[in-house]
Amino acid sequence: MAKSGGRLYGIGVGPGDPELITLKALRLLRASPVVAYQSAVDRESIARKIVAPYLPGNQIEVQFHLPRALEPEKAKSIYDQETQPIADHLAAGRDVAVICEGDPFFYGSFMYLFTRLSEQYKTEVVPGVSSLMACPVSLGLPFTYYNDVLTVLPAPLPIEVLTSKLLTTDAAAIMKLGRHFTKIRTLLHELGLASRARYIERATTTQQRVVPLDEVDPEEVPYFSMIVIPTKNKL
Amino acid sequence: MAKSGGRLYGIGVGPGDPELITLKALRLLRASPVVAYQSAVDRESIARKIVAPYLPGNQIEVQFHLPRALEPEKAKSIYDQETQPIADHLAAGRDVAVICEGDPFFYGSFMYLFTRLSEQYKTEVVPGVSSLMACPVSLGLPFTYYNDVLTVLPAPLPIEVLTSKLLTTDAAAIMKLGRHFTKIRTLLHELGLASRARYIERATTTQQRVVPLDEVDPEEVPYFSMIVIPTKNKL
Repeated sequence: MAKSGGRLYGIGVGPGDPELITLKALRLLRASPVVAYQSAVDRESIARKIVAPYLPGNQIEVQFHLPRALEPEKAKSIYDQETQPIADHLAAGRDVAVICEGDPFFYGSFMYLFTRLSEQYKTEVVPGVSSLMACPVSLGLPFTYYNDVLTVLPAPLPIEVLTSKLLTTDAAAIMKLGRHFTKIRTLLHELGLASRARYIERATTTQQRVVPLDEVDPEEVPYFSMIVIPTKNKL
Repeated sequence: MAKSGGRLYGIGVGPGDPELITLKALRLLRASPVVAYQSAVDRESIARKIVAPYLPGNQIEVQFHLPRALEPEKAKSIYDQETQPIADHLAAGRDVAVICEGDPFFYGSFMYLFTRLSEQYKTEVVPGVSSLMACPVSLGLPFTYYNDVLTVLPAPLPIEVLTSKLLTTDAAAIMKLGRHFTKIRTLLHELGLASRARYIERATTTQQRVVPLDEVDPEEVPYFSMIVIPTKNKL
């Protein structure tokens, strides 16, 4: 079946610094009549804030909210409902640029839209600079060399999984710290990895903070934070 | 000690499509009197090719060659020698923009320059869109969701390491395939992962090719290729 209607764009806008957007993202974002972005009810959208300097001012804006902490099955019906306004614009023939902090297919909420809409509508995804690359750079830490194994670990994983992964990798990034920070810090000390681990939050933004691991206040750890364990292998 | 001399920039220029360069990379690249890049003796530099449309034409260009397949210890003296022309420009007070395909700190040859020069010269690194993000996007494969573990594996690793990692991860990327392709393909079949694995080469460039895993000619697998195993978890 030929696809008709508007075109869906999933646009990675990078980790936070507006200057870390790509030329392609900027071109497609500016050309779309509709811009859509994730945001909590009472909060400013991070992706919207990143691209604010570039918006031409005449676009329809659509907010949606795909709660992050839900179990996948519970999330499904909410996601279906939140997708509908975007589907309506596409059905009416309007292109929709969904802006995503970082990269759209790397732990990004855009995937929930992609799986619901890309079979019906022409879809193009633009990769972006991910926090996985931005955090080591902002910390000044060469991250992975040569034949290193790199493991990316969401902090909510069980201790046993985190332990076995951390003990058998050359480099690691621990994401989604939030309320799991204390569990992770304790584990890194137990495993002898605390001295190699570096903490950063809101990398590349004007609110970027680098804090020694043992000085981080667990009550104040935002979702946009990361612990980076760079490779031990040095040249 | 205050740092004097020129400034060293490590600039990620993205995976291949010139439009996937960031605004920051473009600004710093254009403003530097010296542009340096990795290239084999008889080959065009991939990073140079990516930025060719943007070069103002009045810059000094420096090629260096850091062979990839060497053991780290053997590489050391060669790398010291290849770094010298860049050090000379910095010592003379000229800024040097080292352009790197993908991201500079993610398996990038720039790290060998960084470890040699960043203590002596002011250094700034600009993260880039990595092939790790570009390949899943070009394949149209949502890559990692929710609490997935992602493992990045260089293909030269021993079979036992690859096996244990591949059997205990949600998503994986296998890089540096080249002459290791047959070993990897055989292993993926043995582990029951071949049906989920997707092969792509030169992602986002005009030479991009997506080939079914069993149709890839092992004699023709370039360094810039990747096997992507996306998460099984779907919403």
